Amino acid sequence: MPLMLERDSLRDGRPVYRQIADHFLAEIGCGRLVTGARLPAIRDLARSLEVNRDTVALAYDALANAGAVESTVGRGTFVRGSAIAPGAAADLGPPDLSPMTENLLELERARPRFGSAVDAIPMHSLVPDPALYPADSFRKVLSRVLQEVGPELLLYGGPQGFPRLREVLAERLREVEIDVGAEDIVLCHGASQGIHLATRLFAEAGDTVAIEEPTYNNVLAVMRGLGLKTLPVPMRDDGLDLDALEHALARPEVKLLYAIPTFHNPTGITTALAHRHRLLEIVARHRKPVLEDAYEMDLRISGRAVPSLAALDTAGLVVHLFSFSKSLFPGARVGAISARGRIVDALVAQKQATDLSDSMLLQAALAEFVADGSYDRHLRKLRRVLRERRDALLSALEREMPGGVRWTRPDGGYQVWVELPEGLDTGELLADAVGVGVLFAPGFQFNHDGRASNRLRLTYAMADSEPLRRGVEALARLVRERLERGPRRLARVHI
Amino acid sequence: MPLMLERDSLRDGRPVYRQIADHFLAEIGCGRLVTGARLPAIRDLARSLEVNRDTVALAYDALANAGAVESTVGRGTFVRGSAIAPGAAADLGPPDLSPMTENLLELERARPRFGSAVDAIPMHSLVPDPALYPADSFRKVLSRVLQEVGPELLLYGGPQGFPRLREVLAERLREVEIDVGAEDIVLCHGASQGIHLATRLFAEAGDTVAIEEPTYNNVLAVMRGLGLKTLPVPMRDDGLDLDALEHALARPEVKLLYAIPTFHNPTGITTALAHRHRLLEIVARHRKPVLEDAYEMDLRISGRAVPSLAALDTAGLVVHLFSFSKSLFPGARVGAISARGRIVDALVAQKQATDLSDSMLLQAALAEFVADGSYDRHLRKLRRVLRERRDALLSALEREMPGGVRWTRPDGGYQVWVELPEGLDTGELLADAVGVGVLFAPGFQFNHDGRASNRLRLTYAMADSEPLRRGVEALARLVRERLERGPRRLARVHI
Repeated sequence: MPLMLERDSLRDGRPVYRQIADHFLAEIGCGRLVTGARLPAIRDLARSLEVNRDTVALAYDALANAGAVESTVGRGTFVRGSAIAPGAAADLGPPDLSPMTENLLELERARPRFGSAVDAIPMHSLVPDPALYPADSFRKVLSRVLQEVGPELLLYGGPQGFPRLREVLAERLREVEIDVGAEDIVLCHGASQGIHLATRLFAEAGDTVAIEEPTYNNVLAVMRGLGLKTLPVPMRDDGLDLDALEHALARPEVKLLYAIPTFHNPTGITTALAHRHRLLEIVARHRKPVLEDAYEMDLRISGRAVPSLAALDTAGLVVHLFSFSKSLFPGARVGAISARGRIVDALVAQKQATDLSDSMLLQAALAEFVADGSYDRHLRKLRRVLRERRDALLSALEREMPGGVRWTRPDGGYQVWVELPEGLDTGELLADAVGVGVLFAPGFQFNHDGRASNRLRLTYAMADSEPLRRGVEALARLVRERLERGPRRLARVHI
Repeated sequence: MPLMLERDSLRDGRPVYRQIADHFLAEIGCGRLVTGARLPAIRDLARSLEVNRDTVALAYDALANAGAVESTVGRGTFVRGSAIAPGAAADLGPPDLSPMTENLLELERARPRFGSAVDAIPMHSLVPDPALYPADSFRKVLSRVLQEVGPELLLYGGPQGFPRLREVLAERLREVEIDVGAEDIVLCHGASQGIHLATRLFAEAGDTVAIEEPTYNNVLAVMRGLGLKTLPVPMRDDGLDLDALEHALARPEVKLLYAIPTFHNPTGITTALAHRHRLLEIVARHRKPVLEDAYEMDLRISGRAVPSLAALDTAGLVVHLFSFSKSLFPGARVGAISARGRIVDALVAQKQATDLSDSMLLQAALAEFVADGSYDRHLRKLRRVLRERRDALLSALEREMPGGVRWTRPDGGYQVWVELPEGLDTGELLADAVGVGVLFAPGFQFNHDGRASNRLRLTYAMADSEPLRRGVEALARLVRERLERGPRRLARVHI
């Protein structure tokens, strides 16, 4: 297994030396490096990885401390006898981590790393383009509210979140027929915390959450981090498979459905109104709550708006999740959960027990930014750019992709789902793509069991039209090459 | 059965309209209201309950939707034939919350509410005084970093947190002999999230966490919110009871010790060096991790500094928690967890699976604020004020309190622990105190089982010296009154 380094440890979450150490621990753990095997000389490895020698030395020290290797001056560093069995490193020194946490770490190890490709075309990213952030006007609002309100804005906020922001958001939600007031909204630290909080209301370790498959990959991490099982319900071209949903929700251990009915991640599919009604009938019959992730609700760029599940819900079973992360910028870390009655009370209690409150300063600034029309002005500009990028991407796919390749045509959001002919493993394709400076999100990431997939997600969040065209060209070339070699059966499981 | 309404729906867990609906469902369920029985007219019931007519109408709608009643225009609302069987109410309305969440809501209902006393003397509060926040200089730093770094500061940060802030914090920690680098630190959304994240590394639902008793009350909520049990280890005048700790950690279901060895909350006790060494021996023998909450570490105002557990730890078992919330202001929502090896990796993974990242903007501004000396300038000023307030509080206690009352003399932080003669219930005393405009934190809040206590916590965080003197005077008067009435046995359990 080649060692791919993520130099931006901000991105990887691990310092470089740790990535190196973990690489060798994995190689030893899975038996690719056996007892007595010699590790590369520090000098050589440093040169080949283009890192500082101290970094490699640090990594080897960490391995030695973990009992995985031993160094003999002048001779080198060798894998130790009674070499580390998988996971055995955990039995040395540090206290045991909970099974739940080990389980999460295992998933983390399977995340594809895009590090080596620095100036590659980022069609893998669902992070909105910073070039489009209204950073300067937000900076001014931020400074103004802090000056006007004063130090009180730096106190703890209430666990439910800054009232003014809840008011302006409730107003926006009512405009799309979601019948809520400020008192029905709980603000959270990004939509990801919203998923975390809402899930914990209904499910606890050992329980199961029904998810769409494919689904937002980080949700799989969230569920593992909570010790929850996931039960996949297949996504069809027109939305969730309702027969499968019926069976899933009938199971008593299934406590919740997590769904993205509009601009679904990763497929970009928006389910039709009739389909939503049938979904809600099933949900109501089983009286199971639905967490509706509407993280891209403000990003429609074509077609007619479809009412959200929350707008259609009469049974009080839908918990609705909004976020500023994709439509403005992620850095505010502000999402909003809308629900009813005791669910709101429970969300407030869990929010308080989790981190007391969010930053009132950021929430107050956002409230101003929305109330004075800046947010809507930004959305109009953003939607124009997205429309152009989406059209550039779709026409490039039309022009470049060989027969047998299918893809979705989203009416909003950032993502297009591409299906390659049977037998092509997009996890393997990614390695080629990284080589030619093109990044995409391989399908296995979005499967609950990480099984290989012939699908991949392309986004137009970070890349502009011209790079998108070049990226699709390069990708199509790789696909044709693979097809000429002839398809193979998919076997590999990545997690 | 009379209908009793709880207007504070956070306390009851149900909105008022649902309380009304549930009341009638119960009456029907147990047969006190039979088929055909007429419900009170909306107007009359609204008047007698002193609620809005719409609230009653909402309740009757809910009953109709539940099939329990039917309304005929002009005639009224009647219990339907084949009326709801006992217990059927549970099958109607909102989805079930997890037992863990119900358990948390139960605890929430027991929180004392200080709302009624608006301009009371806030000796209950552990929130630092906004009058002391360097809000304006922070505002300028915030604006400057955003202008200099630009929109990239509004992207997602890495889950480990802004590197520059980790560097400056690592430097500060090394100054107090905690041997860490930036790579050993994970930034979190306030110390409260730090407790949440660190606890989940080692314990999952059903496990037990050893806690000091009394302890930081919100930790009890955190543990309930995670479905964890708590095992109390008594606090003595010189710190944790080590024999009790030995027994607690010997139990396999105990996965973690949560401790506040310096300026303990609520007692203000700082455990001596020798005691810390013995504590770490015990912990190491059982190889159980310790979460050391050092949330007030920068607030020493007298006496000699004692090394933190993290500084003395040789076994890599101590997870150290720092926070800006008490020494600067809570609004930045920034804490820092320091740990070793796989614990850091696991923290990063759990942080990412919880809320992806914190605001880089706030973390970058804090990094500047610390690096350019503003934070230390603020600390010097803050400590002067705290020293004066503490001395004012202690001398007032000396002057005013009757014999048989004891209290601690903290060398830092914000809290003084007062022990009244046996038999005085400070939960009951609080009601009198609120009446005379004095607020304190009653001891039951800090007991894992909420049992009544003759102790209370006074703080000098929010109140200045003069109000503190008046507050203690008033409190002493109430204590003397109670003593004259003669002590009674403590029975009541508040949770």
